[in-house]
Amino acid sequence: MTDFENLLKDYRDQVNKALQEVLPSEGSLITEAMRYSVLNGGKRLRPILVYLSSNLSQCEQQAKDLSACAVELIHCYSLIHDDLPSMDNDDLRRGNPTCHLKFDEATAILAGDALQPLAFELICRIDIKEKTKTLILSKLASASGFSGMVGGQVKDIQMNDEVTVEELDLMHFQKTGRLIQTSLEIGGLLSNLEEENINLLNLYGEKIGLAFQIQDDIIDIESPTSVSGKNQGSDLNQNKITYPTLVGIEESKSKANKLAEEAKEILVPLSEKADNLRLLADYVVNRNY
Amino acid sequence: MTDFENLLKDYRDQVNKALQEVLPSEGSLITEAMRYSVLNGGKRLRPILVYLSSNLSQCEQQAKDLSACAVELIHCYSLIHDDLPSMDNDDLRRGNPTCHLKFDEATAILAGDALQPLAFELICRIDIKEKTKTLILSKLASASGFSGMVGGQVKDIQMNDEVTVEELDLMHFQKTGRLIQTSLEIGGLLSNLEEENINLLNLYGEKIGLAFQIQDDIIDIESPTSVSGKNQGSDLNQNKITYPTLVGIEESKSKANKLAEEAKEILVPLSEKADNLRLLADYVVNRNY
Repeated sequence: MTDFENLLKDYRDQVNKALQEVLPSEGSLITEAMRYSVLNGGKRLRPILVYLSSNLSQCEQQAKDLSACAVELIHCYSLIHDDLPSMDNDDLRRGNPTCHLKFDEATAILAGDALQPLAFELICRIDIKEKTKTLILSKLASASGFSGMVGGQVKDIQMNDEVTVEELDLMHFQKTGRLIQTSLEIGGLLSNLEEENINLLNLYGEKIGLAFQIQDDIIDIESPTSVSGKNQGSDLNQNKITYPTLVGIEESKSKANKLAEEAKEILVPLSEKADNLRLLADYVVNRNY
Repeated sequence: MTDFENLLKDYRDQVNKALQEVLPSEGSLITEAMRYSVLNGGKRLRPILVYLSSNLSQCEQQAKDLSACAVELIHCYSLIHDDLPSMDNDDLRRGNPTCHLKFDEATAILAGDALQPLAFELICRIDIKEKTKTLILSKLASASGFSGMVGGQVKDIQMNDEVTVEELDLMHFQKTGRLIQTSLEIGGLLSNLEEENINLLNLYGEKIGLAFQIQDDIIDIESPTSVSGKNQGSDLNQNKITYPTLVGIEESKSKANKLAEEAKEILVPLSEKADNLRLLADYVVNRNY
């Protein structure tokens, strides 16, 4: 493993430890379903983004950990709901049966419903200026709502053959990009970055968010289930519109790489402090799971 | 109508106007489903509680309206999800087809998912001390989560014939009581009440929350669909355990009335300022819809 891969592993270990602590302990059906759907591996991209951006300056560990957990809880709840029979009807997630198969549909819906407010509660617990807290809460809520993640999922379900690349981009920006951007912004706010630098993180986030999604579509085609933890070809089997189906696999790869380069370009004013974010841009488009 | 009934109508009109404004305008499937599920009448009990308790002292109208909307959005999202086929499988809500029948199941799940973060966003927008805002956010998130509303719904689904009255009470306290308490607390916080008075509102909320739920069960049996807006006898048809099935209709009525009396008793230290909250306790157990 490279030094950077080791760093990512450290961040994953760190957020996994924190998640163990912030999730309610087992003992009831709902808490079991919550833990099952969160403590199951996962790339932890959003927490990693919180750690990387909050390390651009000074920030308390408690603030980083709680924020990293909060964005991951929002992400995990969205995965549970996306996998439901009335949506993607997936049976495998991170190598395990999806929540509605392990438990049942009602429990899966409710586990997602309970993870969402827990994310907001965690932000309330951070020991920072109240003003920063409400700013973070407001950004997180907006990224999760009808103009962000949920809006993107609705567009995803409605996609048909006539979709343009621009419409696909907007769908992905809402569904994935907004929460990725917000994770970076939260880290920036926690470490008291100046507004112009937070704006850079925002632009960077838009690029790597889209690159990440395109790479996900490529992985669906190229990575065997044993590597990705999802059913290989599940997008294709569901006739989902993806980058590769729309513009072909080669152009998808070249678009992802171009976005990663543009993302790195945006970070120039942050000089060597942002080296890890540069490495992350490369990681996003080179991963195979 | 009595003066108090007129006041309730004014509060309902007020929150309905505010909800019209805070909900995203129509134009997409998700915003349509959100508006459909919120702007459909409804008793607006939780907003009324915010108005009544925030009127115990001084408070800006904007703060009242946004808070009243926030608690109602949380309530409405929970109704959409509770009505889903995998949960109560209800086809009528407030006299109209339930959200998943009017639209489809995926849209209903996502409309609920989008209403929840909007509630938190609204609290962030209130023009009050940041510290009060994060306290409200934290209470609202906790009341909505696994130890509150969602936890209660899980218990509700799992109920079987062997349930005791104490277990039924706990289920209702989590499912309905916590958000009712929180609505009262929010009003108290907005009007800067002293902690001991907020605690009184809390105790009062526990009593009327339970009384409200028992009365709901009675209405399910006694009120025709045309009055209640729900299918008469739908609890019975689903073999749901309710107060009347557990202890009989007469004892249910006497328990509801006793709770309303106890609720009023708690308000004694607040003197005549709390007269409307006393009238509300009576209203809760005398309504037939």
